[in-house]
Amino acid sequence: MSSDSGSGEDCLGWAARDPSGTLSPYTFSRRPLKEDDVSIKITHCGVCYADYIWTRNKHGDSKYPLVPGHEIVGLVKEVGPAVNRFKAGDRVGVGTYVNSCRSCSYCEDLQESFCEKKSTYTFNDVDVDGSITKGGYSSSIVVNERYCFQIPDNYPLEMAAPLLCAGITVYAPMVRHRMNQPGKSLGVIGLGGLGHMAVKFGKAFGLRVTVFSTSTSKRDEALTQLGADNFVVSSDPDQMKAHAKSLDFIIDTASGDHPFDPYMALLKTAGVLVLVGFPSEVKFSPANLNIGMKTVSGSVTGGTKVTQEMLNFCSEQKIYPKIELIPIDYSNEALERLQKRDVKYRFVIDVANSLK
Amino acid sequence: MSSDSGSGEDCLGWAARDPSGTLSPYTFSRRPLKEDDVSIKITHCGVCYADYIWTRNKHGDSKYPLVPGHEIVGLVKEVGPAVNRFKAGDRVGVGTYVNSCRSCSYCEDLQESFCEKKSTYTFNDVDVDGSITKGGYSSSIVVNERYCFQIPDNYPLEMAAPLLCAGITVYAPMVRHRMNQPGKSLGVIGLGGLGHMAVKFGKAFGLRVTVFSTSTSKRDEALTQLGADNFVVSSDPDQMKAHAKSLDFIIDTASGDHPFDPYMALLKTAGVLVLVGFPSEVKFSPANLNIGMKTVSGSVTGGTKVTQEMLNFCSEQKIYPKIELIPIDYSNEALERLQKRDVKYRFVIDVANSLK
Repeated sequence: MSSDSGSGEDCLGWAARDPSGTLSPYTFSRRPLKEDDVSIKITHCGVCYADYIWTRNKHGDSKYPLVPGHEIVGLVKEVGPAVNRFKAGDRVGVGTYVNSCRSCSYCEDLQESFCEKKSTYTFNDVDVDGSITKGGYSSSIVVNERYCFQIPDNYPLEMAAPLLCAGITVYAPMVRHRMNQPGKSLGVIGLGGLGHMAVKFGKAFGLRVTVFSTSTSKRDEALTQLGADNFVVSSDPDQMKAHAKSLDFIIDTASGDHPFDPYMALLKTAGVLVLVGFPSEVKFSPANLNIGMKTVSGSVTGGTKVTQEMLNFCSEQKIYPKIELIPIDYSNEALERLQKRDVKYRFVIDVANSLK
Repeated sequence: MSSDSGSGEDCLGWAARDPSGTLSPYTFSRRPLKEDDVSIKITHCGVCYADYIWTRNKHGDSKYPLVPGHEIVGLVKEVGPAVNRFKAGDRVGVGTYVNSCRSCSYCEDLQESFCEKKSTYTFNDVDVDGSITKGGYSSSIVVNERYCFQIPDNYPLEMAAPLLCAGITVYAPMVRHRMNQPGKSLGVIGLGGLGHMAVKFGKAFGLRVTVFSTSTSKRDEALTQLGADNFVVSSDPDQMKAHAKSLDFIIDTASGDHPFDPYMALLKTAGVLVLVGFPSEVKFSPANLNIGMKTVSGSVTGGTKVTQEMLNFCSEQKIYPKIELIPIDYSNEALERLQKRDVKYRFVIDVANSLK
């Protein structure tokens, strides 16, 4: 438990070195353990679209070498002397942020993802010691205990990884907008890592779930494997019209550009569309918003309180993401396939068994 | 109190006859009084932008002769035998709708403006007897008592008229979105009939109010006459930036096209922009919505419960719209001036003294 443990070039990761985004092995040091830090041996890390974006410098702010990954699970190796929520051997997770100001009203409410001074992202951000944060495509990480989550007993670690970004990104706004009222109707736009979790949460909440997809090929999996009640090919105006004014809520996980008016027309009066994807723009007619007092609301990830609640809910309700477990040397191909939406529904890197 | 009173060509109005929109005197009959109807001698009628739209057939659905006007106040002449809320001589108002299904969940909640079978508009719609509804640019009207409001004692009738569309259109979403929390900050986009009422309501709710206008000429009136705390020329990027992340709420009353991203950037985390105007489109970047879980919500008018509450609130708080009282033979010029936004802030037709 010495405060300088964890230092030295003890961490093996895979990093992108330039905007090609190609990942390759990279050895670096994790910062020394502070008194309220947890050192984690990473066992698994989910592959998120953010990893694609930043390894390739799509936002122009990538700092190389860049170790991606913010759906991290593992086992506690060591804890600082002031840590009281975790002990060595505990199963833990880390999501998209590893720090925040801890004093603004959002931090006080445990909504750290909305910290007024901006939370510190798990990779490609500036850590407390001035170093650049490095993500979960690596053997270990040191994180303040506040930003670590308990993975419930018996919940498979590899399944927990996608919950920490994809899961919470849809769960948090669903709860915030009261999409957990049994009997209500939910539309889910896009059936990727986020969308398939939205379907699962929707069914667990007792909602009638309609999946909208551009591809009719996803019909069977949506209805039979994920348990959706309806499937609509969004490019078919007749199918869309048949669902006019039928939905209480829509959660829009599509990052590709798509029209909004046809979906707004599917909302009932006072219906709510929550956007969690990042298309190039949001555009609709005011009439489709005003008449029927509809709402469009955005969201990104969730604070520590709702994240732990979601993990517990998934355990209690036996909600598991559908994953494709891969070794770390498949991560380059995984990112390319993710960009082509060729995954059902989340890649998870088997860090413990492949990063050596 | 006979059920056929009110029939006969006893009603004098001003009607548009074609898409030129020119109004001229027009005599017609009001439908017979039903048992739960109220017959009203109209004293005043506000001039709303809707009057401009439909007299000129801008939406392609105008039915001529068209008598506009849905900010109606007057005195009860006669009531049907089943009417219990009103008696002859009472001061009453009628807003933008005169009927609804009365059985859907929204009608049951007294949110009739969101009636699932669509409320019946006060003019240019189909009335209960199959006739086309005719508005308040006329000497009298017959309306089911449910859709009549009590004008509080001592509240000037001419001041009450603009409350019935402009007032409720901003008041209802302000209350719905909890914009009535003292100490919060409100932005008001546009300073016309709706916007100036939003400023007055905002101040009455104890909010810090910032007015956004394209015209610096409105600064003095916003600050000194309406009591706003700040005035920002929306076309000045430096002024806009100085208010970044400063607003809890924005109410957007502008019907002209305008960008949304600069305003979204002014909202705090979890901030809400309510749109009540009808620009040609709403367009913004998803980042400006998602990061900070912001909300854009629409609204049109309000149900009977919140409308009566607003009237009572205005009376208690001594909130009065600023009006320009005009004779009915000025209504053509008024509509032209309204279209040029040349009014501070609402024309009200002095029906009782000029329509003869």
